[in-house]
Amino acid sequence: MAVNLKPCRRLAPVKGVRVASAATGVKRSGKKDLAILSVCEGAAVSAVFTRSRCPAAPVELCRRHLRRRKGTRALVVNSGVANAGTGAQGLANAQATCEMVAALLGCGPAQVLPFSTGVIIEHLPIDLIGKGIGRCAAGLSPAGWVGAAQAIMTTDTVAKGTSRKVALRDGSAAVTGIAKGSGMIHPNMATMLAFVATDAAVPQGDLDGAVREICGSTFNEISVDGDTSTNDSFVIVATGRVATRAAERGKALQAIGDVAEELALAIVRDGEGATKLVTISVSGSDDRSCRNVAASIATSPLVKTALHAADANIGRLLMAVGKADAKFRQEDLQVAINGRPVIGGGTTAPGYDEREVSKEMRRAEIDVTVSLGAKRGRPARMRTCDLGAEYLRINSDYRNRS
Amino acid sequence: MAVNLKPCRRLAPVKGVRVASAATGVKRSGKKDLAILSVCEGAAVSAVFTRSRCPAAPVELCRRHLRRRKGTRALVVNSGVANAGTGAQGLANAQATCEMVAALLGCGPAQVLPFSTGVIIEHLPIDLIGKGIGRCAAGLSPAGWVGAAQAIMTTDTVAKGTSRKVALRDGSAAVTGIAKGSGMIHPNMATMLAFVATDAAVPQGDLDGAVREICGSTFNEISVDGDTSTNDSFVIVATGRVATRAAERGKALQAIGDVAEELALAIVRDGEGATKLVTISVSGSDDRSCRNVAASIATSPLVKTALHAADANIGRLLMAVGKADAKFRQEDLQVAINGRPVIGGGTTAPGYDEREVSKEMRRAEIDVTVSLGAKRGRPARMRTCDLGAEYLRINSDYRNRS
Repeated sequence: MAVNLKPCRRLAPVKGVRVASAATGVKRSGKKDLAILSVCEGAAVSAVFTRSRCPAAPVELCRRHLRRRKGTRALVVNSGVANAGTGAQGLANAQATCEMVAALLGCGPAQVLPFSTGVIIEHLPIDLIGKGIGRCAAGLSPAGWVGAAQAIMTTDTVAKGTSRKVALRDGSAAVTGIAKGSGMIHPNMATMLAFVATDAAVPQGDLDGAVREICGSTFNEISVDGDTSTNDSFVIVATGRVATRAAERGKALQAIGDVAEELALAIVRDGEGATKLVTISVSGSDDRSCRNVAASIATSPLVKTALHAADANIGRLLMAVGKADAKFRQEDLQVAINGRPVIGGGTTAPGYDEREVSKEMRRAEIDVTVSLGAKRGRPARMRTCDLGAEYLRINSDYRNRS
Repeated sequence: MAVNLKPCRRLAPVKGVRVASAATGVKRSGKKDLAILSVCEGAAVSAVFTRSRCPAAPVELCRRHLRRRKGTRALVVNSGVANAGTGAQGLANAQATCEMVAALLGCGPAQVLPFSTGVIIEHLPIDLIGKGIGRCAAGLSPAGWVGAAQAIMTTDTVAKGTSRKVALRDGSAAVTGIAKGSGMIHPNMATMLAFVATDAAVPQGDLDGAVREICGSTFNEISVDGDTSTNDSFVIVATGRVATRAAERGKALQAIGDVAEELALAIVRDGEGATKLVTISVSGSDDRSCRNVAASIATSPLVKTALHAADANIGRLLMAVGKADAKFRQEDLQVAINGRPVIGGGTTAPGYDEREVSKEMRRAEIDVTVSLGAKRGRPARMRTCDLGAEYLRINSDYRNRS
């Protein structure tokens, strides 16, 4: 089902990171559902989390552990149960998870960051998790990344990961990232977990700034269904095992940004029921107006069903632009689909050919470009997918599939 | 498909209003698609319109005509084509429609209010409309309301209308309303047209205030799909043909409000693909927070698919509450479904019984009650429906069905 996306089969090892994964039985299917990433001492680790007012227990614990600045030595991720909306017992279970990982790796519990994804408001089967952690510890290896990408999947149809190589003066650094996410995807942030690691050296302060900036232009620019999860987390690890000059940090951060961009796109390509990747760009008014119009189009069920059906019902685009809280005049509005003008001066564009546009809409990748009239402002961008009956099939029946 | 809703079969005549309807051929099905409501001299008429930044030509013309305060003598409504996103020609077509109606009724064009609903960005076939207006003029009758309710339907499965009787000291006044709307339904306003008339006397100033207030607590509290149309209009006509004392105006306005409430609910009951009516009430924080949480639940595809499947996946409610821009503490959050606590203290409510709640979710009418913890503030309310595959079937194929 995923749009121009194949499962990742090979991911480059990152010096200073060892990875293991296991099937604990939390996923009833018996598929892998636990991953541990062990990180060498001295690594810089930065993260951003969901803006949900109801964050999951592991998110709360991650925030606490990072605030304590004891250095992070491991990430532990389970899928199947999100440990969200689980109150004090949820926190205790997340804490127990960290303690078990810490005991095996010989670090402090506050040096472990826990992550969960899956059904909300169910408790973590901590006995199964414990056994799984034991099995993982024996298998930690620099080559374990693909297994981890598989272990963090929920409704994903494709394991998501990618690597880059960064040529540095004293050698070559690797950047490898994995992510999961398919539904409940909307900015701030998506229902997604993404972990990117590099063996380049990036000081903590630089990494803290970069994690927010990169997230803003990648994971915060995608929407599958407008829903936002309780568990979203994006983490960057820089182990510093490959010598990196100050002047080369930008190059490393660029590669981390490229990996994040590819992972964010992979999430949309694998959107629940998606058959098309849609990129929306809006320019010509103030930033807020452009962002609002882009989000309005990206979340309109009527636009997304028309895109699914390759129905050039361009009136729905007019509707979606019009309902946004944005500053512009209708008569200045211009919209193009894959570069072909469809709306001009607020009405059908001159030379608009419905058949041609329907043909464009049958493609697997569609660009919707909106101008609100003014020349100022940088474009706002959103990536989304179409909305088909498959989304409903998946989501009317999700809990039975996990 | 509509939830506990039958087509209206009898509507009370309103003194001073004559109604006619016709099939013009704009709807390819050959069904009725034009209605004229002729209004006696001296009637008070007030209206509110869509907040879309891309309002349709008839909305623009209505606003102009009402600003000129020449008195309204007729409403003309067509379905099939929305005359939205049609630029100068759209305005000219709406103007021509008003002129034709004015010529037949012997009033000025600015005394006619035009309304359209249907496919956006198509031009009004003005020749067909003209012939239809001619046929309508001959058939104007106090008994024509049900025909008009049918003529304004688009994806509606049920003609929507209702009447109330108001006992006054010097006789009895009637209130009759009709509405259409099924998809593209969200506050400010729904994709909907609603026309309510009474023969009670309500001064223009009182009516102007009432139309906003009534709209706020009825049509602005419903959402089918979060989309907002270019054409939404809500009009109240008070002909004053039945003597009404100043002290009795409140009673008349109350009946108008009741009619509007029933029409708004009818729109949700007939939501595209709806099988359930869902009422969301949120209290316990400031007004804005409560409204945002209610809207977040009402527009969450994941909540609405779970409601459709009667899947007590209450974690999705936690997600939808959490993603709203609202002030509250997770540990104060309480949610009940049909009065049964499901979330308490931010996690599973004590005594929560999934089987019982699933049973409640199989009912055709579901109440979701949210408390954000504080005692202050009046509850925010939203009415919505569930989301099933039928919505997608309708909207992937809409233009072929009109």
